[in-house]
Amino acid sequence: MWLHASCLLEFNIPVDTPFLLMLRPRSGRQQWIGREQYVMLPSVRAVEFTDPFGNLCQRLVAPAGPFSIKTSVDVECADASDTAPGSPFVEVQNLPEETLPFLLPSRFCESDRFTQMVAALVKGRSSGYDQCAAIVDYISQTLQYTPGSGQQCKSACEVNESSQVVCRDMAHLGIACCRALSIPARMVVGYLETLEPMDLHAWFEAFVGGRWYTFDPTQKNLQGGRVAVAYGRDAADVAIYTQFGEPVTLTRMDISVKRMSVPLY
Amino acid sequence: MWLHASCLLEFNIPVDTPFLLMLRPRSGRQQWIGREQYVMLPSVRAVEFTDPFGNLCQRLVAPAGPFSIKTSVDVECADASDTAPGSPFVEVQNLPEETLPFLLPSRFCESDRFTQMVAALVKGRSSGYDQCAAIVDYISQTLQYTPGSGQQCKSACEVNESSQVVCRDMAHLGIACCRALSIPARMVVGYLETLEPMDLHAWFEAFVGGRWYTFDPTQKNLQGGRVAVAYGRDAADVAIYTQFGEPVTLTRMDISVKRMSVPLY
Amino acid sequence: MWLHASCLLEFNIPVDTPFLLMLRPRSGRQQWIGREQYVMLPSVRAVEFTDPFGNLCQRLVAPAGPFSIKTSVDVECADASDTAPGSPFVEVQNLPEETLPFLLPSRFCESDRFTQMVAALVKGRSSGYDQCAAIVDYISQTLQYTPGSGQQCKSACEVNESSQVVCRDMAHLGIACCRALSIPARMVVGYLETLEPMDLHAWFEAFVGGRWYTFDPTQKNLQGGRVAVAYGRDAADVAIYTQFGEPVTLTRMDISVKRMSVPLY
Amino acid sequence: MWLHASCLLEFNIPVDTPFLLMLRPRSGRQQWIGREQYVMLPSVRAVEFTDPFGNLCQRLVAPAGPFSIKTSVDVECADASDTAPGSPFVEVQNLPEETLPFLLPSRFCESDRFTQMVAALVKGRSSGYDQCAAIVDYISQTLQYTPGSGQQCKSACEVNESSQVVCRDMAHLGIACCRALSIPARMVVGYLETLEPMDLHAWFEAFVGGRWYTFDPTQKNLQGGRVAVAYGRDAADVAIYTQFGEPVTLTRMDISVKRMSVPLY
Repeated sequence: MWLHASCLLEFNIPVDTPFLLMLRPRSGRQQWIGREQYVMLPSVRAVEFTDPFGNLCQRLVAPAGPFSIKTSVDVECADASDTAPGSPFVEVQNLPEETLPFLLPSRFCESDRFTQMVAALVKGRSSGYDQCAAIVDYISQTLQYTPGSGQQCKSACEVNESSQVVCRDMAHLGIACCRALSIPARMVVGYLETLEPMDLHAWFEAFVGGRWYTFDPTQKNLQGGRVAVAYGRDAADVAIYTQFGEPVTLTRMDISVKRMSVPLY
Repeated sequence: MWLHASCLLEFNIPVDTPFLLMLRPRSGRQQWIGREQYVMLPSVRAVEFTDPFGNLCQRLVAPAGPFSIKTSVDVECADASDTAPGSPFVEVQNLPEETLPFLLPSRFCESDRFTQMVAALVKGRSSGYDQCAAIVDYISQTLQYTPGSGQQCKSACEVNESSQVVCRDMAHLGIACCRALSIPARMVVGYLETLEPMDLHAWFEAFVGGRWYTFDPTQKNLQGGRVAVAYGRDAADVAIYTQFGEPVTLTRMDISVKRMSVPLY
Repeated sequence: MWLHASCLLEFNIPVDTPFLLMLRPRSGRQQWIGREQYVMLPSVRAVEFTDPFGNLCQRLVAPAGPFSIKTSVDVECADASDTAPGSPFVEVQNLPEETLPFLLPSRFCESDRFTQMVAALVKGRSSGYDQCAAIVDYISQTLQYTPGSGQQCKSACEVNESSQVVCRDMAHLGIACCRALSIPARMVVGYLETLEPMDLHAWFEAFVGGRWYTFDPTQKNLQGGRVAVAYGRDAADVAIYTQFGEPVTLTRMDISVKRMSVPLY
Repeated sequence: MWLHASCLLEFNIPVDTPFLLMLRPRSGRQQWIGREQYVMLPSVRAVEFTDPFGNLCQRLVAPAGPFSIKTSVDVECADASDTAPGSPFVEVQNLPEETLPFLLPSRFCESDRFTQMVAALVKGRSSGYDQCAAIVDYISQTLQYTPGSGQQCKSACEVNESSQVVCRDMAHLGIACCRALSIPARMVVGYLETLEPMDLHAWFEAFVGGRWYTFDPTQKNLQGGRVAVAYGRDAADVAIYTQFGEPVTLTRMDISVKRMSVPLY
């Protein structure tokens, strides 16, 4: 399917402030960017670079005063996310090198603390995809997905003691549990077509059966219409914006995702 | 200045044919992509990756029959390319690592054969930028820039024995001469605002005084309005398309570059 | 100075177990490896790769039974670690790209939680090196360096509530504080010539004044004789060995560092 | 098998001269470095980095006067190089990204000029490994391997018109022919156990059937006992030393390769 997705950020900037942004989705195996737009108002000089996870990142100094960033994409993505029940665990010695960083604990995914819990949780499941599915089932049944409840970013340990959580929190717990089983898992931030209420979304991917599969503990049925904007170890790596210095005020954030017909231009 | 640049390629494909393409300019220190579009007709599944020079490359299999690719960008670039007469040579031991591959000979820049010639050519010039400028002067005075004359890609040695040459040829000779002086030099393929007749363009950059500078032996006065589409060691690295297997026919190629007002969208 | 450093690890392995190891120091700007040795007993097939931080990592499957790894290096390193009081803070927009990952919070360095604490701690200090020095002073005065006290790896938040800590813990707190000031900071694991009792050591580096500087809260006077074995965001990235699956027993670990005369071989 | 290989280079340096060197073989899938040594006399400050092909490279400024470099390795490598008659061609769209640079023409491998010749040469052979084998047969039957005959590096086109050639030349022709068939091919410089007369050696690898295979037109029977020191597109990428500025004199070069028993140290 083709989607038109857009993100508008409006800030009030007290003093000139350096930003790192991740707002340019890349074409890759999962999605194709047919059209893209990235506008700053006022226009400032920005520099783009590629981070260690392959994300296109932008650096700029936002000038004092009102400052807005509007990005949009027309993107072709899968109608349905692949699933693969029964897909096997890949032994660590056979994992591709680029998946190895996603085995280690990270800021918000303290996988080193979940060995015991996850062992109980996946008991009786066959190794690999089915373990991931059991983890997702547990998370969606135990925690209450409450969009808008999450001001501060919670780590997997904190999530595990919470009742109301957001998509990001659920992904953190899912990732920590997968890694505790030696399954590489990574965070994805992006757009989801039918999300209610519409917002940026976060989910995770796990590497089983020789490739990455999508998991989303917030959704009863795993649906397609996903646009990946950034990949990373957890929310610390994939903040769509990181500002340094004096806090700035985000005065408005509008996310929109709409299905479109095949673009002819 | 803001430019709107577009490239239309139409092919006649006898049998399904794998392509590598380099048609997505990147935002970087020199340019900012405000809007971009990349459309194939018929639409095929393409995969994007980053090559060793940082170019975004696309892989696809073009289906038999008529096949077209239309790309366009709105890009902010410099009004004038920087120049720096007197800017000094950087000794090899002080060069940044990423410049080192651009010291070595490559397919179309046999720098190992130009040591003597270039020594004579830059005699009396101070090391660095002024040597590059002397090389460019020599090339533009000696060779006759004849757009459309270049069917087959010529190496620097072949260029040196030619009379009529195209932009790509002149860049190859310039690069070979710079490298023969231990000055890193790289090829750029891209758009140039006022090119006559309009076409894709090629020029080169040399690393002196701690940064890359633009050199263009085809132009009396070095002008701005440049959009870099790809960087590489020579034309072998930066072909905007490379096809494999049976030859295909390029039935049409349209390049357009127009100045635009600041985009508001 | 030239040092001969060695590391012997002996394990008891219950079942075939995959390992990731980081036991091959690299030559770089700070050190030169003149001789190196890496032996496994029994000998197994190992594969080496480079991780995102540039470390040489080894992958292997340790066979059931006793298994040992012996590595050693002859390395030339600095007699004294550079210091630079007054060296200035580098504004985020001017930081080299490769330093940016070291600004973000990580598993054991929750820099996002230290903004207030560190502001108080560096009050009155000029931005940059002197802030780092103030952080190190605070850590070494507040916490009691107690080699051998650290079984489980502590995060900066946990360290801040501890009394007895090891080198790794002190580095975690130092890193978290630096990052909270937008100063890139990274963990180093390696050898230190005069460490008492001899063991592997951990310290940290902060990026100020355009380069990385060494900081070590465990040492009254910053001394040289350091061999960096691995760099990373925190202890999660630079474990000299990470094993997956059933726990194995480390039955012996011997570290030795001796000064040697210039090797002639 | 375990080999002890060493390389001694002695230079007479007229003025301080920057060098790039590739003299530190890496452990990888094909070989394991058990012990290694790298000594310069007089000792100078050298810096190591990784080039785009993954080779460990050293940079240094050799001081005026006599200067020597002695490197040696104890390395475990395969007793016999794998062969795979019948192994299939990998279609370009299915090649791993990292193999793509090895499809393009390079300084000494003008693959763009060999399309017709190679088509005749591999006529009737099945696509893939058997084509590579036919190329190697042609080279070894047509050209006379004459160690010591090669002062200047010859490109594939030049080799094709020569009678007496060295290992490097034969590899260039083999690589150019493979690439002309859209088979990725790369140059290897290294040690070969039983080479007569002993010297550094060069051969090539082609990517068929999903992996790299070794081909060596200088040897009737493909033997093992190979230590890869550097990989690249051709001899321009894998010179064991490249010097810049005034020519220096190589006064002595000693290569030695000896089989050893399993090292215990």
